[in-house]
Amino acid sequence: MTSVTVVEQIMSANDSLAAQNRALLEASGVLGVNMMASPGAGKTSVILRTIEAVASSLRLGVVEGDTAAVTIDADKVISAGMPAVQINTGGQCHLDAVMLGNALPQLSLSDIDLLIVENVGNLICPASFTLGTHFNVVIASVPEGDDKPYKYPNIYRGIDALILNKTDLLPYIDFDIDYFKRGIEILNPDFHFFPMSCKTGEGIPEWANWLKERAAAYQNR
Amino acid sequence: MTSVTVVEQIMSANDSLAAQNRALLEASGVLGVNMMASPGAGKTSVILRTIEAVASSLRLGVVEGDTAAVTIDADKVISAGMPAVQINTGGQCHLDAVMLGNALPQLSLSDIDLLIVENVGNLICPASFTLGTHFNVVIASVPEGDDKPYKYPNIYRGIDALILNKTDLLPYIDFDIDYFKRGIEILNPDFHFFPMSCKTGEGIPEWANWLKERAAAYQNR
Repeated sequence: MTSVTVVEQIMSANDSLAAQNRALLEASGVLGVNMMASPGAGKTSVILRTIEAVASSLRLGVVEGDTAAVTIDADKVISAGMPAVQINTGGQCHLDAVMLGNALPQLSLSDIDLLIVENVGNLICPASFTLGTHFNVVIASVPEGDDKPYKYPNIYRGIDALILNKTDLLPYIDFDIDYFKRGIEILNPDFHFFPMSCKTGEGIPEWANWLKERAAAYQNR
Repeated sequence: MTSVTVVEQIMSANDSLAAQNRALLEASGVLGVNMMASPGAGKTSVILRTIEAVASSLRLGVVEGDTAAVTIDADKVISAGMPAVQINTGGQCHLDAVMLGNALPQLSLSDIDLLIVENVGNLICPASFTLGTHFNVVIASVPEGDDKPYKYPNIYRGIDALILNKTDLLPYIDFDIDYFKRGIEILNPDFHFFPMSCKTGEGIPEWANWLKERAAAYQNR
């Protein structure tokens, strides 16, 4: 079928460009992380907390994916003193390797150890487009409900870490952490799990340490 | 460009099939509502509450859109005694008119006054695909944050009603309702606004009355 061929060509072209992005990151000594989440899970809040927690150890850069021209998130990151580039996808539902490839030259990669890519808020489409980053993190949040890994399995497949944000709301919401975790373990037995509250700071040190360990291993590769 | 032509053809084909769906609904006297939301905003909870509130006045049917084969939501609706059909999109990020067109014949439309279509949990892609339903409702939720209409404007454009779910969490979350509403009013001055809590029941009667009024006006058209 023509439609299948076209989709295969798009995915193949994306993978090829993702490999180019990876090569550029490797050549520049930059470790890249793709952060994916539903709208409102707290991606930007987690990134701001991450900046606070690791900026004394690692030089950070941020790429912000947005579907509209608003710079709400990018402005927050820049206010936190970080080099940031916004990708406005023009209504598109995910970042792809072309977009990241266009954004990378706008950053001074030789001055960056860890590049955080904030993907578009979407639990479906970003799963299908590799970017060339080194690892994938999904940020879930307690109010989304504990059944999401069962309903949106593709985005949870192959993740390296899962941040469960907004744990401060656990007293007010029915959320079975074991049920939630089992849904991810079925897909991916080796993921790292970070319960977190950007409000109280719970889980930030553990997540920051994990990032620092990954970055150190990468620098010593 | 070829890619633009292909996309235009897809959208045009979708609109044409949506018109067919609309004609079938009209011929059967069924009022259709397309309910869109982010993952975890509470679409299914709102639908279950709606069933409780209007089932004595209106004969309901439900179409459940899911990206995976899990029947968590469809089972809940069927348990509530409603005729329901699940559309498994096979990983696709939205419902389209073809999918709804295939689902409609599986319902006994002559026994239904109001058809609720629960779209896939996604604040981006469903906005681009008309289904043939009569009106569009977005369910937002307090924990998603008050900036979502500014970040995901397409889904808020042209909506008839907005349900702001999980208002019971307002005491624990910074959420500026006026800022949120302004973001929607810019796009769509005439929308109806229903603050709601499926937990406490706040807002359910107002929403149910609005639905009943819409259905009565439709029956008397």
